This record gives sequence, C-alpha cells and structure tokens, in this order.
Amino acid sequence: MKIEGKDYKTIWLKDNCVKIIDQTKLPHKFVIKDLKTVKDAINSIKTMEVRGAPLIGATAAYGLVLSILENNDQSFLKKISEELINSRPTAINLKWAVHRMMKKIAGVNSDKILEIAINEAKEICEEDINFCKNIGLNGLKIIEEIYNKKKKPVNILTHCNAGWLATIDWGTATSPIYHAHKNGIPIHVWVDETRPRNQGANLTSYELNEEGIKNTIIADNTGGILMNRGEVDLCIVGTDRTLANGDVCNKIGTYLKALAAKDNNVPFYVALPSSTIDWETKNSKEIPIEERSSDELSEIEGVDQNGKIIKVRIYPQKSKSMNLAFDVTPAKYVTGLITEKGICEASENGLKELFK
Amino acid sequence: MKIEGKDYKTIWLKDNCVKIIDQTKLPHKFVIKDLKTVKDAINSIKTMEVRGAPLIGATAAYGLVLSILENNDQSFLKKISEELINSRPTAINLKWAVHRMMKKIAGVNSDKILEIAINEAKEICEEDINFCKNIGLNGLKIIEEIYNKKKKPVNILTHCNAGWLATIDWGTATSPIYHAHKNGIPIHVWVDETRPRNQGANLTSYELNEEGIKNTIIADNTGGILMNRGEVDLCIVGTDRTLANGDVCNKIGTYLKALAAKDNNVPFYVALPSSTIDWETKNSKEIPIEERSSDELSEIEGVDQNGKIIKVRIYPQKSKSMNLAFDVTPAKYVTGLITEKGICEASENGLKELFK
Repeated sequence: MKIEGKDYKTIWLKDNCVKIIDQTKLPHKFVIKDLKTVKDAINSIKTMEVRGAPLIGATAAYGLVLSILENNDQSFLKKISEELINSRPTAINLKWAVHRMMKKIAGVNSDKILEIAINEAKEICEEDINFCKNIGLNGLKIIEEIYNKKKKPVNILTHCNAGWLATIDWGTATSPIYHAHKNGIPIHVWVDETRPRNQGANLTSYELNEEGIKNTIIADNTGGILMNRGEVDLCIVGTDRTLANGDVCNKIGTYLKALAAKDNNVPFYVALPSSTIDWETKNSKEIPIEERSSDELSEIEGVDQNGKIIKVRIYPQKSKSMNLAFDVTPAKYVTGLITEKGICEASENGLKELFK
Repeated sequence: MKIEGKDYKTIWLKDNCVKIIDQTKLPHKFVIKDLKTVKDAINSIKTMEVRGAPLIGATAAYGLVLSILENNDQSFLKKISEELINSRPTAINLKWAVHRMMKKIAGVNSDKILEIAINEAKEICEEDINFCKNIGLNGLKIIEEIYNKKKKPVNILTHCNAGWLATIDWGTATSPIYHAHKNGIPIHVWVDETRPRNQGANLTSYELNEEGIKNTIIADNTGGILMNRGEVDLCIVGTDRTLANGDVCNKIGTYLKALAAKDNNVPFYVALPSSTIDWETKNSKEIPIEERSSDELSEIEGVDQNGKIIKVRIYPQKSKSMNLAFDVTPAKYVTGLITEKGICEASENGLKELFK
C-alpha cells in the first residue's frame, strides 16, 4: 500500500539486510530501519518497531535468515529460534513462522541453508500478501451487501491496527475496506484510538489517510454509544490468536466492542489469515496474556508547538498503572471469521469446514 | 478530603470571591483559582476547571451570587440563569441548582437578595456534602458484605472521576470507598484512565493517592478482561443524569463497563445524590449528549523531562477526531442505585419507593 504516494511493503530484504518501517516513530516520522543481526530482529519485535501478528511472524522468519548469516550451525539456530518465539508471548504467528522455517532448514547442509531460508521467508511474506488479499475479497461481500441495502456510506468500526502495517500488505481487518474503496463503495471508518499505544490513531488512521479513505479517530470509550445511535454498520477487527473453538484473542478492548456490538445487533467480524489460528490450545484461559511496561500508559509521545517530538508523563507522579496488552472475545460474540478461504462461523465446525 | 494532608472542599466563598480548585491543572499542579464574576463562573464550567455534576450545580449557584454582586436586577438575573444552564448540556444538576436559586430569590428586594442567595448556595453545598456522606454510608454496606465473604482486599473498578473533586466533599462513587477505608476494610481501586480528558488518572487516582487508598490506573480497554479474570469484585460509577426509569447517563465508556460487568456477573452500582435524578425526561434518546472539541483527543498535556508542563499533539496531522462526552447505560445493566436515602433498584418503582 501507499505512503506519500509511494508503494511499500512492511518488510523486505536488501543486500543481506532486513528493512522495516519503524512503527514506533509513526505517525510523526516515517523511518526505514535496517535490521542487521538477529538481535536487531528480536529487539524490533520486543519494542514493537514491528507489530501485528502476521508481521511479527515474517520478522521472525527474516530474523532466522540474519542468524544464518552470523552462524549456520543447527544447534545455534535451535537456540535462536527459541529466543525468537519468546520475544512476544501472545501472537501465535511468531511460533508458526519460526517452526515453519526450522522445519525447512532442518538438516540442510551449509551451502544451501541461506538460500533455502531466504526463499522460505520470502514465501511466508508472499503467502501472507495473498492471504490478506483474499481476506479482502471475501470481506468485500459483507460490505457490498450493506451498501446495496443502505445506498449510503458504510460506517465501519475497527480497533487497534489490523491494517497493512500489521501484515506485509493489505492488512487483515482493513483489507475488505481497501477492496471496497477500490470498488467505489463509499466508506467511513471509526478508528478506536487504542490506548495505551494508540495504534488506532498512530497507524490505522495514518494508513487510511495515505490511501484516501475517510476516517475519524474516537476514544476507545466511544464505540458503544455510536453503535446504540445506529452510526456503526459493521465492526471488523484483527486477531493475534484465534482458537479452534472460535474464541478470539486480540488487542485489549476488543472484547468490550464485541459486547456493545452484540447489545446493538451490529455485525462483529474478525479477519485473519489461517496462520493466526491456534489449533492446539483448548481453553482461552491458557493463552498467555502479555503484560507490558506501565510506562506505555503513563508516558506518551507527541509533537510540541515547535514541531519537536517529545515524550511527556501524563499521570500523577505517585500513581501506579498496569498494562495488559490483549483480551479474549468469546466466540459467541463473533458474527463470523473472515479468512483467506472464505467466511465461517466462529466455531470448531465453522473452522473445520474451511480448513479440513 | 485531603490534599497534601490539608482539608479542602472543592468550592467556597471568601470576601465576595468564589474559590475553586482549578481541575484542569491537576495532577501536575495544585492551583486555587478566584472566580470574581459570573462570567468567570460560566467559563470555569465550560472549560471544566470545575466538573462533576454536583460541583457544576454548586458553581452555578455561586455564579448567581457573583452576578447579584454585579447587578441584582431580576431580569438581568433571569438572563444570567439561562446562560448558566446552557454552559454545559448534559449534567442535570446545573439546571436543578439554578432553578432552586432562582426560586429562592424571586421577588426578593434588593436589601436581602445577596444574603439569601449566599445562604442558599451554601445550603446547596452543605446538602451535597450530607448527601454524599450518606451515599457513602449506604454503599459501605455493599463493600462490607463482599469483604466479609472474601476476607481479602476488595477490588473496585471506577470510571472517570465521581470523587470528592466532582462534588463538594466525599464524592459519590468514591464515598463508599472512603468510608470503607476509614472503617479499616482493605480496598484496591482499578481506576479507568477515562480518555480523552483522563479524569480517572488525573483526578481519581490523584485524590485516592492523597487519601492513602491503593489504586492502579488502567487503560479504558482493560476492565473487561479484569472482570473476566475475577479481578474486580464490584464496579461503582457516578452519573451526570439518571432518568426516573433508571437509565444512567454518565461519562463516555461507562456503558461498555456495565456490559462487561453483566457478562461476568460483577455487581455494577451507580452512586448519585437525588439532585442528579431527571424526573421529567422519559426516554434516554432525549438526553442532549455533549460533543466537545476534538482537540481534547488530539492534544494532551504532560510533564517533560525538565519538569515543564507542556501540551503535545498526539494524532497524525491529517486525521479527524470526534469527542462525545457521555453515553447512556440502560437500567437493565445497573445492579442498583446508591443514593443518600438508601440503595434501590434502577427502575421507576425503585426510585419512587425511595423518593415519594
């Protein structure tokens, strides 16, 4: 997708160096950063320079490429693969991508290992782009149906950033929106700010602006009354891990919007590539919910009146704060899952039907 | 209640000047501000130097005292009373306090009018303090009951600031908490940050700190998963207007927490003095929901690393935002109303029983 009119992906390899868009600098600065070592890749995942389940997976895959450039010994790579998996706990794609890479390079001799790893990392990215494109084409049908009834701009609410910046291209939740826009359907997006890291404001609103899609940032508190007033036709969010039973783990606050959608009969869809499905975990209580630094709440970065980017403390000095990064939306509040293979019910049967 | 160990009320009269705590400066600075004219009072309500339904009512009452000092002509006062009522649309106490003052001074001759107005404004404040104290004693029973069963610290979630800073003293939602604390019940409060103006972080956490009550600030997105994990025993919030049918209009986001409480069987109480009941409006759709400047979302004040208080822009420059200040929680999601006269069901019958 576009930034200042120029096409980008979120990650690419050039001259044995992995290039990423440093997402902690957005929206105030657009910075392309070089990852030269696997430590850089791990750090980039931990500090959320890259974030979003699919992009975390791709970064881990390229992280393994970087580690092979350092040392292609299999036991070293095994150790690194564990470090990569542990760099963030909740998104399942990280584990998925690392396992896929490790399986591909297992036992490969040192002449070939780099080439095979690079090809597999590229393949993971290409596949994600295709999956996201198909999620868009499948989700487009839902938006078309609403538009054909309403004949007025379709209001879509989204939470956090499940945009192209969270994937390699297109995004998950945003892909149906981009496809609808390209097909001439008028769209307006309510963008949840998404405290504490404001990925809605900093990333989703930013990328929608760059693609010329109308959007309005709202406080995370606002979605309920908007739905109650009939100002939301549809919710679409992403997910960091969806269980085989249809329970959806996503950015903290998703659950509250799903409850409001249910209470007001607003359809609530979750968009995901199949790499985000956790087929093993049976109970959502077993999903590790990441707790991040409380500084992410008590400090915020912005632009002062001289145009300088600075960080300020916003809480009382004596106050404690707590920063859980995800919550779980029970399947019963999810209208459907939009995947690369089609739309299904958020249930074991629904998912099995699509992914036999 | 106390700030830095010293007892304060939120508003008082001294030498024909109304003193308030400028709440837009908290938590970074404690500033007492003089209101010398009724224009000052109106401005103070509009800019939220004073806020919270009961305190807005009291400020309007004192605003009329200030206007009498300028000009005690009844037609002038009538005009001013309308300006006061229109200074903010949603909280019902504003209208209630102004009507009560105007009724008291109607037709009073100019010798006596100032004294009568001062006495009535003081009476409104004294009554509010008593009401809030009784709300506390009534709500205390709910907390005691939980503590007697649990024998561990009681976790209470609150939204926005319905603390003593929103009233004259004690607060509404916080009054049961302060009373429980004074009675030796261990309490921990989850404080919703309450975007966009962060009254939870800036005011509730601040005032709880000053009273030595344990509290943790959380993003507004967090309450759902905390309730789901069993980490919230009870929610108590305030209200800007409660209809006779029990529907509760309060700070934006309250509705989402009420939905989560319902979904997780967490009791959800609303604390209010009877001055906050709107006996006339039949349907919550008729409540005017204030839309405030979008700058309150896109800009935020904090302390930089040199200790200087500055404002920064946090959103992408091209982005639009929208700032609704209140939402409505349907009575069916409210476990009970804690009033100065006792606790009742959030319904016409419940309220009529208490306030015949």
